[in-house]
Amino acid sequence: MKIAVLPGDGIGPEVTREAVKVLEALDLPGLTLFDGDVGGVAYSRHGHPLPQETLTMARECDAVLFGAVGDPSCDGLERHLRPEQAVLGLRKELGLFANLRPAKVFKGLEHLSPLKPEIAADFDILFVRELTGDVYFGEKGERIGIDGSREGWDTMSYSAKEVSRIAQVAFRAARAGNCRVCSVDKANVLETSQVWRDTVIEAAGSHPDIDLTHMYVDNAAMQIISKPAQFGVILTGNLFGDILSDLASAAVGSIGLLPSASMGARETAHGIFGLYEPIHGSAPDIAGQGRANPMATILSAAMMLRHSFGREAEAAAIEAAVGRALADGIRGGDLGGEHGCKEIGAAVRERL
Amino acid sequence: MKIAVLPGDGIGPEVTREAVKVLEALDLPGLTLFDGDVGGVAYSRHGHPLPQETLTMARECDAVLFGAVGDPSCDGLERHLRPEQAVLGLRKELGLFANLRPAKVFKGLEHLSPLKPEIAADFDILFVRELTGDVYFGEKGERIGIDGSREGWDTMSYSAKEVSRIAQVAFRAARAGNCRVCSVDKANVLETSQVWRDTVIEAAGSHPDIDLTHMYVDNAAMQIISKPAQFGVILTGNLFGDILSDLASAAVGSIGLLPSASMGARETAHGIFGLYEPIHGSAPDIAGQGRANPMATILSAAMMLRHSFGREAEAAAIEAAVGRALADGIRGGDLGGEHGCKEIGAAVRERL
Ligand SMILES: CC(C)[C@H](C(=O)O)[C@@H](O)C(=O)O
Ligand SMILES: CC(C)[C@H](C(=O)O)[C@@H](O)C(=O)O
Repeated sequence: MKIAVLPGDGIGPEVTREAVKVLEALDLPGLTLFDGDVGGVAYSRHGHPLPQETLTMARECDAVLFGAVGDPSCDGLERHLRPEQAVLGLRKELGLFANLRPAKVFKGLEHLSPLKPEIAADFDILFVRELTGDVYFGEKGERIGIDGSREGWDTMSYSAKEVSRIAQVAFRAARAGNCRVCSVDKANVLETSQVWRDTVIEAAGSHPDIDLTHMYVDNAAMQIISKPAQFGVILTGNLFGDILSDLASAAVGSIGLLPSASMGARETAHGIFGLYEPIHGSAPDIAGQGRANPMATILSAAMMLRHSFGREAEAAAIEAAVGRALADGIRGGDLGGEHGCKEIGAAVRERL
Repeated sequence: MKIAVLPGDGIGPEVTREAVKVLEALDLPGLTLFDGDVGGVAYSRHGHPLPQETLTMARECDAVLFGAVGDPSCDGLERHLRPEQAVLGLRKELGLFANLRPAKVFKGLEHLSPLKPEIAADFDILFVRELTGDVYFGEKGERIGIDGSREGWDTMSYSAKEVSRIAQVAFRAARAGNCRVCSVDKANVLETSQVWRDTVIEAAGSHPDIDLTHMYVDNAAMQIISKPAQFGVILTGNLFGDILSDLASAAVGSIGLLPSASMGARETAHGIFGLYEPIHGSAPDIAGQGRANPMATILSAAMMLRHSFGREAEAAAIEAAVGRALADGIRGGDLGGEHGCKEIGAAVRERL
């Protein structure tokens, strides 16, 4: 069980450290951890946010535990040297095409949601976002527009193969829940979305147990905050998924608790290669002060055990320990509490 | 004062009728109304959702009062014959590049918002959305992708001239409020957004009173529902504006009350040519039953008087009459009330 640990910038190192300690506390046979640089810290040490050695290490491991990247001191750099490019580079280079992001309100934490408690209580959506296509990775550049002024352009696209691959992930994931999949697009305007929608419908043909619906992205944004209970899995492309999954995280009200998995196609000895990270960012304003909440990273480690190592029991144990810690009143500053990063990590380990 | 009235489909005719009666009740000198077909009804009568005669009539008027388009019986038609294409066609043909959409919680209606009352109370954002560019109108089509499967593609783009034109609208609009403009883009990924951001910054140079900030679209979606009070004007491109302005409308909780203006560059005798419409759609499920709430269309007519006819006093009078009707407990079914379309129209006119 080889894990590449990439703590990154800001609060990345402190939250990753606690998640690693939780993994170590499980005493898993053959667990080996490797450390790598990524993001602003990698730029300052190696001149690139995603050094070749980091990529090579990730490729040789079964999974990546990722902290966060983003450092205000890199704002002035050219786009290809900025920390976010490490995120995009890892996804593309490692073929991490499927992003799984649960957005669920934790029992007892409904009051943290900006939504009314009766709406928040039912919030439990799994986002399946395509992660290596769309306008993110199409041809792009600058040119002189027909009006004679500088023009920026980007190409959005999806092929049927790309769409049916991610649709299968959504259908599989939906079976663990209520079998409902809502595919989100903008097929009334975009050709990309028309292929998306046609392909999703076709792919669903061999999954008669799946209850598939379609929604335009503007309507989806409305429905997510007004009637979240109607959803099970939301299946989207890269750009719409970026916006809607962050929207849902904010609706849940505790982004310090939300994990994510980015899965590839490569099979490991025990599961599928994946990269696991908290959805919160590097939070440079509180970095190094021990005030970050490591729970999202710890829950990401649980997802890793489940999806990349087939260790369902251990994954569930970690999740239960986090749940108990929350029930016992352990709260980071992000949840209005007073517990520090190390304290929270220790509290979770005690309850393992 | 020549107004083209395009009622369209579903509840469009009934809500437009009440707005027209409100305009007529003002006894404005020289007010002339023309009726035109648009949407599904235009397709069934003329074979096209945006017939040439409708376009010609709109061009010869000073403003357009638009109901709604969208008819389930048109779902099977080819894209270019579907009702939504009339919306896109009108925008492009009439050069309506600036969409103004207020999203404000009405006093006393905070409880309709899915947000907690203390967050909803402060909700007052004006969206300035670019409406004739972006991925909506770029080159698009289908091809065989490099993986050998069918691929849909669309071109996203913005030129500096397009961006600075809409930015000026946002800066002007912000002066009527708190002078805050937040420009939303995805400059960490898109070249289109990089030109957008650079141009907005440059355009702001000649407006030192404007407090300009920038936000990525994913973060904006989070902030709109969690800390709406930070915003004044949100300036966005066509696609992000579509998603975020609908999100904000849902956050307000009463889309039956929200008007919109789509402005062009052409000057009329008294103001600027524009198209005015409620943001709710054609609601085919309740069409023809007299149950639709005409308030959003009536408020759109008020925006028309303000922006296209320079009639601030009359615009404010209509808005005050709607406010009084609401305060007196007049509520459409969309607001949990029992009042019908005609009743609400009459109630507003009585209070004029
Ligand atoms: C950093 C950025 C490029 C990235 C994205 O847009 O995908 C982030 O917002 C995310 O969702 O992981
Ligand atoms: C009907 C559709 C093409 C349109 C759009 O996306 O612009 C609508 O959603 C809107 O916002 O007016």
